[in-house]
Amino acid sequence: MPELRKDPIVGRWVIISTDRARRPTDFLRESVRIEGKNFCPFCPGNESRTPPEILAWRRDGGGPNTAGWSVRVVPNKFPALGIEGGLNREGEGLYDRMNGVGAHEVIIETPDHYSTLATMPESAIENVLLAYRERMLDLKNDKRFRYALIFKNHGDAAGASLEHSHSQLIALPIIPKNVVEEFEGSRHYFREKERCIFCDIIHQERDSNVRVIAENDLLISMAPFAPRFPFEFWILPKTHGSSFEDSPNAVFQSLAGMLKDNLMRMDSVLDHPAYNFMLHTSPFGSENNDHYHWHFEVIPKLTKVAGFEWGTGFYICPTSPEESARFMREAAIGATPA
Amino acid sequence: MPELRKDPIVGRWVIISTDRARRPTDFLRESVRIEGKNFCPFCPGNESRTPPEILAWRRDGGGPNTAGWSVRVVPNKFPALGIEGGLNREGEGLYDRMNGVGAHEVIIETPDHYSTLATMPESAIENVLLAYRERMLDLKNDKRFRYALIFKNHGDAAGASLEHSHSQLIALPIIPKNVVEEFEGSRHYFREKERCIFCDIIHQERDSNVRVIAENDLLISMAPFAPRFPFEFWILPKTHGSSFEDSPNAVFQSLAGMLKDNLMRMDSVLDHPAYNFMLHTSPFGSENNDHYHWHFEVIPKLTKVAGFEWGTGFYICPTSPEESARFMREAAIGATPA
Repeated sequence: MPELRKDPIVGRWVIISTDRARRPTDFLRESVRIEGKNFCPFCPGNESRTPPEILAWRRDGGGPNTAGWSVRVVPNKFPALGIEGGLNREGEGLYDRMNGVGAHEVIIETPDHYSTLATMPESAIENVLLAYRERMLDLKNDKRFRYALIFKNHGDAAGASLEHSHSQLIALPIIPKNVVEEFEGSRHYFREKERCIFCDIIHQERDSNVRVIAENDLLISMAPFAPRFPFEFWILPKTHGSSFEDSPNAVFQSLAGMLKDNLMRMDSVLDHPAYNFMLHTSPFGSENNDHYHWHFEVIPKLTKVAGFEWGTGFYICPTSPEESARFMREAAIGATPA
Repeated sequence: MPELRKDPIVGRWVIISTDRARRPTDFLRESVRIEGKNFCPFCPGNESRTPPEILAWRRDGGGPNTAGWSVRVVPNKFPALGIEGGLNREGEGLYDRMNGVGAHEVIIETPDHYSTLATMPESAIENVLLAYRERMLDLKNDKRFRYALIFKNHGDAAGASLEHSHSQLIALPIIPKNVVEEFEGSRHYFREKERCIFCDIIHQERDSNVRVIAENDLLISMAPFAPRFPFEFWILPKTHGSSFEDSPNAVFQSLAGMLKDNLMRMDSVLDHPAYNFMLHTSPFGSENNDHYHWHFEVIPKLTKVAGFEWGTGFYICPTSPEESARFMREAAIGATPA
């Protein structure tokens, strides 16, 4: 008998197929292989082929927009939103619209075309995370923005248009619906219990220990109780933290280790799948609170979202999180989180 | 400058790219071609290869599970939910779960392996719509169910696993989140205005006439003001109707014509894309109301949903609905809706 499970934060139900559960090898898909066949605007030496850089970590003191960087942040050449101008909110009968004002940046994670967050050294991943922090903090100075999403599309099937490892940041003049739902869901729980729901989830998961994937000094990763997608997993700080960018310095180092470890496990179990990850953190201006708990959500691209999901917001997940966590835990990666 | 637009019913914002708007030929994708290479359990003569039929329209009086049908409804051989048993709601710490009880049926729309809803005669499409109605009405007798979703996945890219034209029905013991949001959104509007928001939208769209695709005596089709996807379109009854299955008989005939016309236009403009459609109608037990308005939503599969959309619920739509409606209106199909 399949099982219906409810996400305790946003109240989303999912269907977990238990009878015909799918194992890692049951998912038909192409592995992401970096081929390096085409011209790459993200490779060192090609700095002039991107818009001028916003931020770069350079050890050797080279000039801006020259090689020698380890992490480089540039405006997206084809931005979804425009950085200039006011919002100009206006109505059109019963409709509402405003100018598509926002920032759309690309974080080039490594100068090496063939590296990924699973293969890069932990210190290099930490630099990427610190670049996320720096850009978030800087964008808060622009009072038009209310939220910034850090996300990654890895592999063509997950929506990446360039194979050189990169993540993206989009800053928005409104707080997105999904963020509001999660933020309000956790606030509602806090009002009732005076506890953070994510802290409670971590506590329960450590007790039951069936969906935990890995743990280090500061972070924990787990398959969520009600995943939308097979092999979905979350990484959360073990101590309450409502805002990623305000985390203690040690967290970024620890997170680099955890992220690398988990992506290596995923690559091992699912043979280098395409995937997305998204950073969930508090909206601008509400960074310090007792109810919301920042975290990363990682979703390998294994299944197709179809009419049922679009019509209902209800997801059918063909692998239970207990199974996926077990595969991830038992993955042979020859390394443990830092 | 891109534009941010808000869906007036559920409050979802979308980004409409206007600068680098994509035209139909800009979308890279494979056309859906029916090849007929594999054994097909939905073809006449293979009735024993599906679970026994629940419903079939037969003119010639053949026995159940034999050839001679024009529309045939069978349980899904690999159901997402199980039809037997009670819900057995239970908690697990802060989590909620219940048995995955539900109905999962397949509506085989035609005996002809090579036909689609765009090529079938209107009378045959009407029979499919009447089969939807009959199954909805029958499933309401099962008091465990609160909602039934009718949907269609057409083409591999849209999640169809068999190419023989079919749609699906899933009846659920809970009202899905997206349905609740839309239902509550329209109720909220009604409380303020004492008018149906969909009726108001239809009125405004007919006035402005920039997003209307087609109109016949009883139905209208249009690209929504804030689409999630390029070339998304909706078909709605012009007279208020809160429940698809309780529509006057004439509506099914008229809808058959409109659906065929619109799918022909889409096939012409986008060269036979994969697509999903979903019927949005009132939940079981709330069929008669003044605020909700049943409709079909059709989404061709042209783009990949990636990290930004998963993280925010915010969609980036690279073609404005005014553009897509114009392409659909101007499509050369050599037919007008009945």
